[in-house]
Amino acid sequence: MKQFKVRPVPTVLAQELQNKIDGKTKPLGALGKLETLALKIGLIQNTLNPSLKRPVLIVFAGDHGVAEEGVSPYPQAVTQQMVMNFLGGGAAINVLARQNGMTLRIVDAGVNADFPAHPGLTHAKISKGTRNFLRERAMTPEQCEASVITGATLMKKELDDGSNVVAFGEMGIGNTSSAAALMSVLGKFPVAQCVGGGAGLDKAGLMRKRQLIEQAIAKHPMDGSPMLALATFGGFEIAMIVGAMLQAAETGAVMIIDGFIVTAALLIATMIEPAVRDYCVFAHQSDESGHALLLSHLNADPLLLLNMRLGEGSGAAMSYPLLLAAVNFLNEMASFEAAGVSKKIE
Amino acid sequence: MKQFKVRPVPTVLAQELQNKIDGKTKPLGALGKLETLALKIGLIQNTLNPSLKRPVLIVFAGDHGVAEEGVSPYPQAVTQQMVMNFLGGGAAINVLARQNGMTLRIVDAGVNADFPAHPGLTHAKISKGTRNFLRERAMTPEQCEASVITGATLMKKELDDGSNVVAFGEMGIGNTSSAAALMSVLGKFPVAQCVGGGAGLDKAGLMRKRQLIEQAIAKHPMDGSPMLALATFGGFEIAMIVGAMLQAAETGAVMIIDGFIVTAALLIATMIEPAVRDYCVFAHQSDESGHALLLSHLNADPLLLLNMRLGEGSGAAMSYPLLLAAVNFLNEMASFEAAGVSKKIE
Repeated sequence: MKQFKVRPVPTVLAQELQNKIDGKTKPLGALGKLETLALKIGLIQNTLNPSLKRPVLIVFAGDHGVAEEGVSPYPQAVTQQMVMNFLGGGAAINVLARQNGMTLRIVDAGVNADFPAHPGLTHAKISKGTRNFLRERAMTPEQCEASVITGATLMKKELDDGSNVVAFGEMGIGNTSSAAALMSVLGKFPVAQCVGGGAGLDKAGLMRKRQLIEQAIAKHPMDGSPMLALATFGGFEIAMIVGAMLQAAETGAVMIIDGFIVTAALLIATMIEPAVRDYCVFAHQSDESGHALLLSHLNADPLLLLNMRLGEGSGAAMSYPLLLAAVNFLNEMASFEAAGVSKKIE
Repeated sequence: MKQFKVRPVPTVLAQELQNKIDGKTKPLGALGKLETLALKIGLIQNTLNPSLKRPVLIVFAGDHGVAEEGVSPYPQAVTQQMVMNFLGGGAAINVLARQNGMTLRIVDAGVNADFPAHPGLTHAKISKGTRNFLRERAMTPEQCEASVITGATLMKKELDDGSNVVAFGEMGIGNTSSAAALMSVLGKFPVAQCVGGGAGLDKAGLMRKRQLIEQAIAKHPMDGSPMLALATFGGFEIAMIVGAMLQAAETGAVMIIDGFIVTAALLIATMIEPAVRDYCVFAHQSDESGHALLLSHLNADPLLLLNMRLGEGSGAAMSYPLLLAAVNFLNEMASFEAAGVSKKIE
């Protein structure tokens, strides 16, 4: 597979950035997480005057063979229907991306349906859904690799078009099962800690989902390789997100990480290239159980806790104004000196 | 004093609003707090199609006699200097209000300085700072009442100009002492639970602040009247916020409540007219200790937890995109029916 070369974010400007933050007309540290965010974005862009350009949110959609086991309370057709809803502008992510001035891209990574040509849709279908990982590996190694490369290529186009801040969304009935299996296998967590209600399973459904994933994990021997785990349990949309992340980090973009499935993709991306983690800002901690633990495993401190559990990158879009606020205060606030404001009495 | 007549928010549309929310193309409840917010704003405006018009944030500034006791690590002159910084556009609240398209008003409620005429400044000075409440009551009853009425009048002008969503900010060296005393006296909390580090006191300073406030409370007999407590421990800016809140609620505006001092003002406003509480949306839970307890006392569930402790209404401005998202999803998202998306399998 293509080798991605992700460099650790340079920290040479850390002290200068911190001094600039501390010199602003506010009590020391009084902007809390906005200050951490400003420092982070400044470091990623390696500048004292960062800027966010052409924010883009790519929603990757794919179907999952395991959906036939009834792991979701919604029929598989909803993946296709929601893609049409995205194209029609009526989904939550349309509303939130529009509000925040984010460019929204919809990618058919592997939906079990044929779509008409549409300017808002990128046709990148690997296959009409993965195979059921209860019976066999979800993808062939070739499909998995092709998905990663496709995700990287699609991301590269956005970066070439001027984006330096990127977010990821997903749609795929059954994909919390896929993400839970990946989290369990790669993070070495018991399945019970990784499985949640997804789009709204009841208690019996949740127990069944857990048992099915335990069975699936027992069935497939693993060797610690993230690519093997991805091929076995992943979805085309998850694999494309992995590739998109590797590309975004290689290019040095700020990445907004949101949602259980996207965070599972990040786990894989960081196992391939650990420095990917340096480029991440964490958006919303989902109500999907498993996400809090996965975030903690990645040593991530999310910005928002709004009890959302929608996916689509919805929390990433909700967080974008916070990133903007961080950059804006760093660039636009006056310093004590410039404003003639007295400093703290020591 | 002028009688404010605040009506409880009508709940007649509650079920219809909930049905509209539940019919949107997302799993039931998946937008979490945004859904609660959409319901709330719909009820306040008594419509299924709410809208937010001309959001305005009024920062009231005033000085506090108690500042001479060294309760803040900043000199009193910082109140004046920060007002000049607001007028120059260089403070955090300027940056955040600008980013979010909020009209920003700066009011001199009682700063210990003379200001030049400036289009951005409303001259409403009651006096050049309150008296030191360690020695005597901070305001006369007449000053307190005049402040409340002035706050209401200034708010009325904004509402007449078309605002239906309003937020409050404050600036005043010493005003966390004022708010802590009000919280203790009116909420019946021990002083230790109400006092925090404000703009950055160290441990010794914090102990001293606590003792001073305990002394002050012991000195002034109270009769349970919120207006007497406000006159005794309040600031001109706090009293104006109380009046502004009463007016905003009487007119039926959505109020964004943020910060320890503003929340203390709300405590007073709700004691004067309990239905004021119906019009409130809670923005950010401050790192100023006391705020979490005060919010809980008011049965409030804040939207943001960003470890900020700046005041100025900064958290209100940060929260505004969430209010907008709530209204936008309610108005713009497609329903399952309209988008042809299958519902959950029951």
